[in-house]
Amino acid sequence: MKKWLLFSCSYALAFTASAQKTLIGFTASNSEKQVEWEKTFDAQIQAEDLDAWMKFLTAHPHHVGSPQGKANATYMVNLFQQWGYQAELATYSVLFPTPKTRVLELLGDKPYKAKLEEPAIPGDPYTAQKSEQLPTYNAFSADGDVTAPLVFVNRGVPDDYDELAKRGIDVKGKIVIAKYGGSWRGIKPKVAYEHGAIGCIIYSDPADDGYVQGDVYPKGAFRPKDGAQRGSVMDMPVYPGDPLTPGVGSTPTAKRLDRSEVKTIMKIPVLPISYEDALPLLQSLEGDVVPAAWRGGLPLTYHLGPSKAPVHLKLQFNWDLKPLYNVVAKLPGTEMPNEWVIRGNHHDAWVNGAEDPVSGLVAEMAEAKALGELYKKGYRPKRTIVYCAWDGEEPALLGSTEWAEDHQAELQQKAVAYINSDGNGRGFIGASGSHTLEPFFNQVLDDVVDPQTGVSVKERRYAKDIVAANRDARQKMFGNKTIKLGALGAGSDYSPFIQHLGIASMNLGFGGEDEAGVYHSIYDNYTHYTRFGDPGFQYGVALAKTAGRVTLRLANADVLPFDFSAFYKTVADYTAEVKKLLDDKRTDVQLKKDLAEKKLFVLASDPQKKYTETANDSLPPYLNFSPLDNSLLQLKENTVAFAALYGNATQLPAETQKTLNDLLFKAERSLTTTKGLPRRPWYRHTIYAPGFYTGYGVKTLPQIREGIEQGAYGEAQDGIDTVAKALEAYNAYLTKAILLLRKSS
Amino acid sequence: MKKWLLFSCSYALAFTASAQKTLIGFTASNSEKQVEWEKTFDAQIQAEDLDAWMKFLTAHPHHVGSPQGKANATYMVNLFQQWGYQAELATYSVLFPTPKTRVLELLGDKPYKAKLEEPAIPGDPYTAQKSEQLPTYNAFSADGDVTAPLVFVNRGVPDDYDELAKRGIDVKGKIVIAKYGGSWRGIKPKVAYEHGAIGCIIYSDPADDGYVQGDVYPKGAFRPKDGAQRGSVMDMPVYPGDPLTPGVGSTPTAKRLDRSEVKTIMKIPVLPISYEDALPLLQSLEGDVVPAAWRGGLPLTYHLGPSKAPVHLKLQFNWDLKPLYNVVAKLPGTEMPNEWVIRGNHHDAWVNGAEDPVSGLVAEMAEAKALGELYKKGYRPKRTIVYCAWDGEEPALLGSTEWAEDHQAELQQKAVAYINSDGNGRGFIGASGSHTLEPFFNQVLDDVVDPQTGVSVKERRYAKDIVAANRDARQKMFGNKTIKLGALGAGSDYSPFIQHLGIASMNLGFGGEDEAGVYHSIYDNYTHYTRFGDPGFQYGVALAKTAGRVTLRLANADVLPFDFSAFYKTVADYTAEVKKLLDDKRTDVQLKKDLAEKKLFVLASDPQKKYTETANDSLPPYLNFSPLDNSLLQLKENTVAFAALYGNATQLPAETQKTLNDLLFKAERSLTTTKGLPRRPWYRHTIYAPGFYTGYGVKTLPQIREGIEQGAYGEAQDGIDTVAKALEAYNAYLTKAILLLRKSS
Repeated sequence: MKKWLLFSCSYALAFTASAQKTLIGFTASNSEKQVEWEKTFDAQIQAEDLDAWMKFLTAHPHHVGSPQGKANATYMVNLFQQWGYQAELATYSVLFPTPKTRVLELLGDKPYKAKLEEPAIPGDPYTAQKSEQLPTYNAFSADGDVTAPLVFVNRGVPDDYDELAKRGIDVKGKIVIAKYGGSWRGIKPKVAYEHGAIGCIIYSDPADDGYVQGDVYPKGAFRPKDGAQRGSVMDMPVYPGDPLTPGVGSTPTAKRLDRSEVKTIMKIPVLPISYEDALPLLQSLEGDVVPAAWRGGLPLTYHLGPSKAPVHLKLQFNWDLKPLYNVVAKLPGTEMPNEWVIRGNHHDAWVNGAEDPVSGLVAEMAEAKALGELYKKGYRPKRTIVYCAWDGEEPALLGSTEWAEDHQAELQQKAVAYINSDGNGRGFIGASGSHTLEPFFNQVLDDVVDPQTGVSVKERRYAKDIVAANRDARQKMFGNKTIKLGALGAGSDYSPFIQHLGIASMNLGFGGEDEAGVYHSIYDNYTHYTRFGDPGFQYGVALAKTAGRVTLRLANADVLPFDFSAFYKTVADYTAEVKKLLDDKRTDVQLKKDLAEKKLFVLASDPQKKYTETANDSLPPYLNFSPLDNSLLQLKENTVAFAALYGNATQLPAETQKTLNDLLFKAERSLTTTKGLPRRPWYRHTIYAPGFYTGYGVKTLPQIREGIEQGAYGEAQDGIDTVAKALEAYNAYLTKAILLLRKSS
Repeated sequence: MKKWLLFSCSYALAFTASAQKTLIGFTASNSEKQVEWEKTFDAQIQAEDLDAWMKFLTAHPHHVGSPQGKANATYMVNLFQQWGYQAELATYSVLFPTPKTRVLELLGDKPYKAKLEEPAIPGDPYTAQKSEQLPTYNAFSADGDVTAPLVFVNRGVPDDYDELAKRGIDVKGKIVIAKYGGSWRGIKPKVAYEHGAIGCIIYSDPADDGYVQGDVYPKGAFRPKDGAQRGSVMDMPVYPGDPLTPGVGSTPTAKRLDRSEVKTIMKIPVLPISYEDALPLLQSLEGDVVPAAWRGGLPLTYHLGPSKAPVHLKLQFNWDLKPLYNVVAKLPGTEMPNEWVIRGNHHDAWVNGAEDPVSGLVAEMAEAKALGELYKKGYRPKRTIVYCAWDGEEPALLGSTEWAEDHQAELQQKAVAYINSDGNGRGFIGASGSHTLEPFFNQVLDDVVDPQTGVSVKERRYAKDIVAANRDARQKMFGNKTIKLGALGAGSDYSPFIQHLGIASMNLGFGGEDEAGVYHSIYDNYTHYTRFGDPGFQYGVALAKTAGRVTLRLANADVLPFDFSAFYKTVADYTAEVKKLLDDKRTDVQLKKDLAEKKLFVLASDPQKKYTETANDSLPPYLNFSPLDNSLLQLKENTVAFAALYGNATQLPAETQKTLNDLLFKAERSLTTTKGLPRRPWYRHTIYAPGFYTGYGVKTLPQIREGIEQGAYGEAQDGIDTVAKALEAYNAYLTKAILLLRKSS
């Protein structure tokens, strides 16, 4: 392996004592041993294993409650046990609706009855398992039978309704049709309902994942004309997990809400369809032509509607409780068994689910198998490692959330970090997570070799980023090889760990050279994945080596490799962002008022078209950012002091290290509050949350940012105070750690 | 009419003596008289006239050499004579090829023979005039009979071939297919030929002017599936006009080149087709999927090619000389008959040509008729006004160029300015031109009322611009209502006047709320235009009032309203741009070399795809900008001195004014050089030229800018020196004017 320069940011001075690289948090000698063990670890990871496991796990559709789902969980428990783990099924009973009736038809002169059917592809036997497949539907849609004219709402996010309103179009009493993409799908019916729509259709436009992007399956990877995207529309930005048991595990004895009391189940019927089924519906739309940014890739002129002909949508569901089968496998730590490093990936899928989720799952299994081998050869991680394979991620992060809620006290006490993966494919490392782990993770990335090029996966990701950057960014990036972690929003099983329990988390995966487009359809299967996802499972192996190193180093470090300066810098950047957001909004609102006062919006618009730009927003007040600024100032000082002392921490007595470690990983808990975010108390983290109106997309400093965005300035001010207090508590942990280090040095 | 604030930039101080607005260049009393006459002028302009003239002029196809073309010219001469003008036909004999044979077919397994036919539309009688229509073709294509595989080249500009080369695709010996748009059409076959292609097909993608933009004709305005765009592909960036007589008028006695000697006729066969005809060709393409920015709006996955099946293209043309009929109508000036203000619009079309060009032509006719009425009522413009209706604009600006070349000595002596129009439609004023006319033009815009809103056309354009602007631009524009003139590139009859003869020119037209999409097809006709272009001809009337004021004020001003500070500021901005262009290129080339040296381009690219980013450009040298900077410094000082003196100029004796006027309009001549631009000496203007590789698109400071862009740094340095010398000569005019004003005050 080629030697790579250490990234040269602040912590490097503190963490590297010599030219010879020492792993962050390890003594020089332990670092050497760890690096040796990692070579053995790498040698255990066999692409053939990943291939065989994927073949078994994706042999049949394996959604929640399916025979194959249970068989997969049992299969994994057996494997983990063979590999030397204390493995067991952790079962819960959860609400998981499946469709009984699905009818979508265009009435009027040119009637059309939607097929709602993904046909089998000759030569791909998986697609022919018709009787085992869940039909195309959106889980947690309402039951309903509605008939109304149709309106096109683009991506179906709040801004789209603002644009419609400017054009005099109201969706009250209408059925809306939205394109997939631009937000998490559950946002679309939620916002439609908020605007008075009585039904919602979501279709996959070929511009997003069909023929516009590339050749369609089976010639190429992309979504064929009848392919549709299944998926949950539960209001997970309020809370994920079993909707009947918010905040607690859905054990047999748990107190359950009545379904009528649940706020996160959609209030209107929602159905996903293919673009073949969408075409006649879109052709039926009258009214104005859509704004240019709203166009899709179908061969028609997109109109806003409403349609003259009404659309009839009828949906009925089985609202049964179904059993969940999580797999939980532990390898107890020798020195600190009550410090847990948790690694997870879900195992349920919408249909056969090769890419989503088995591509990530088989990497995790390879890690677990390799660690089992290491254990047999004498490797003894200091901390407990817990491998999890979650059930029910697709409908609502059910398995991870129920398990995390069920064990929340223990997890808050013991969990050092949670490392997640999900889909994986050929290409570049992608990573989001707690920024305390950023420098540590960068060191890991130096040590994993990219299978296609032979350089480190870090070098390759850096190459991609700098080549894609514009002139200014290229200049800034040249010579600075830090890979910045993204912030965690939502979309996989890390949510309960970081956002509910305040456990430092990461989400890892490779991609960018794989070709997808068949997400949540019957075409995401072994045949497709091994042609277009990761032929030969080279990047499955790379993920196992990456996530494996993250897990093993966290589990075996003398002192946990949490870094506070990276965290400080990130939060300081977020703070600058929300300040700018507020200032820019003030400028924009003022400019709009000025322009409106001089009638410039009216004069700029075509008198023959109905279009009224509004300037109704009130001018944002100035907010008091000083509590947050002061907390950040204190944090900055603490990070400097801590960085200066950390270099010697690995030399401290074991007991002191233990105390220090406890402070280090529990500091993250102080970033949560008990009251949580406004109107969604389940989300307790003050720095990271999924957006209330984005779903997947993260909102950092969520209460402040969303308060400003939504014009709830009082909430934003409360948010500033809340974050400031959380950072004070965080500073208290740091201060204790600094005192401890000073006392011991 | 609502009163509008004067725009408050520098010249306003010099030109407005009182709160009561005085027209720039007029004494207060002459200004008052002029404003009164303009009211009478406005009252003469009747939408019904424009309608009736368009109906006559577009009754049949009226391309060069057609019976209707000659009939139109005769009709206009008669009208101008009736209105009191000295009107005549100015005829020239020019090369104008028309098609004899057009064959395009896809061979191979799935053969397809292109229809190459625009069908008639029921209910639109104009489209049924089959025997009179020119077929779909590109004038000045080569004769040819070629068979070769097909390659997709996006817009067919040099950057596109760079992208293809990075992907290992060579067009040598191939036929290329390019989308219309992104450059003037003639660039596409020229660049294809430079890269070794043996044939070129240009098609109208529905993303550009078809169903993606809006409903197609006859339901909506946009190009129907079989519509194709005719047009010239002569290499007009080298020189326009009759290719056989460059630089001189194509009179009967002119010395003509042999056709084989002509460099501006395309070297390969070129054919425009509809997207219906393009579809099977595009479907035949194999190889990689195109980059995202290259996609069109057809329902297929766009591939780069080459196609396995060859394409056969056979074209033969009649290479006859055809007669041109320009209309030239003069109204001699009373005080300065040897100062000419020229107003022109072409009258030839590809087919019936309602929008292009008759919509602009009928506005010019309305101006001429109204002026005739004013003349009868006693209005006597000081200068001579010349109304022109050009023939042969479509093939190569034939009529205007031959006339301008034929009369170049007289024009350089007499022409004060040339005011052009072409297509016109509902919406906002659009204007490009010599920046010496910018403040004058802004004052005109204050005085024309927008027909739909009742505010000035300036206010309306300002509203459009500021509403479309981003935050920063909005802030800068708020309270600053100057409408910036665009720079003149190519695309209509102003070229010979400004770029060959150095006559200050403008190009005017309304648009932005009209719907087009049928450019150069049989569907651009009276039926289409009166539905989608300018129903009721309100904007034809607005154009007549705008261009009429420009013409009349120029013709009747006591002192010509040329402004040098606006010109200085513009050229200073262009200079800053080319300096930045050079610096940015240096930075980019250096960064590319740095990235390439560290193998980052290789590491960023997908090893399974053929893609090689190159870093072969040599580092741009530093150029000596000081001669240009010094000339600009001098110009700045002169403009300040001139502005301070100009306020009194209208009070000078008539003879002094005459001397001053002569200096003012001839200063523009000094911006031309006798040697012209490298490899295209016909283009003599040092500030404005059409781009060698853009065609329509302007390149300001062309020799400097194109030298930098094309890596011809020696030429760029020569360009700096040339522009500096031109500005010195310009400064000499200004210095004379200043001395004259000082002496007289």
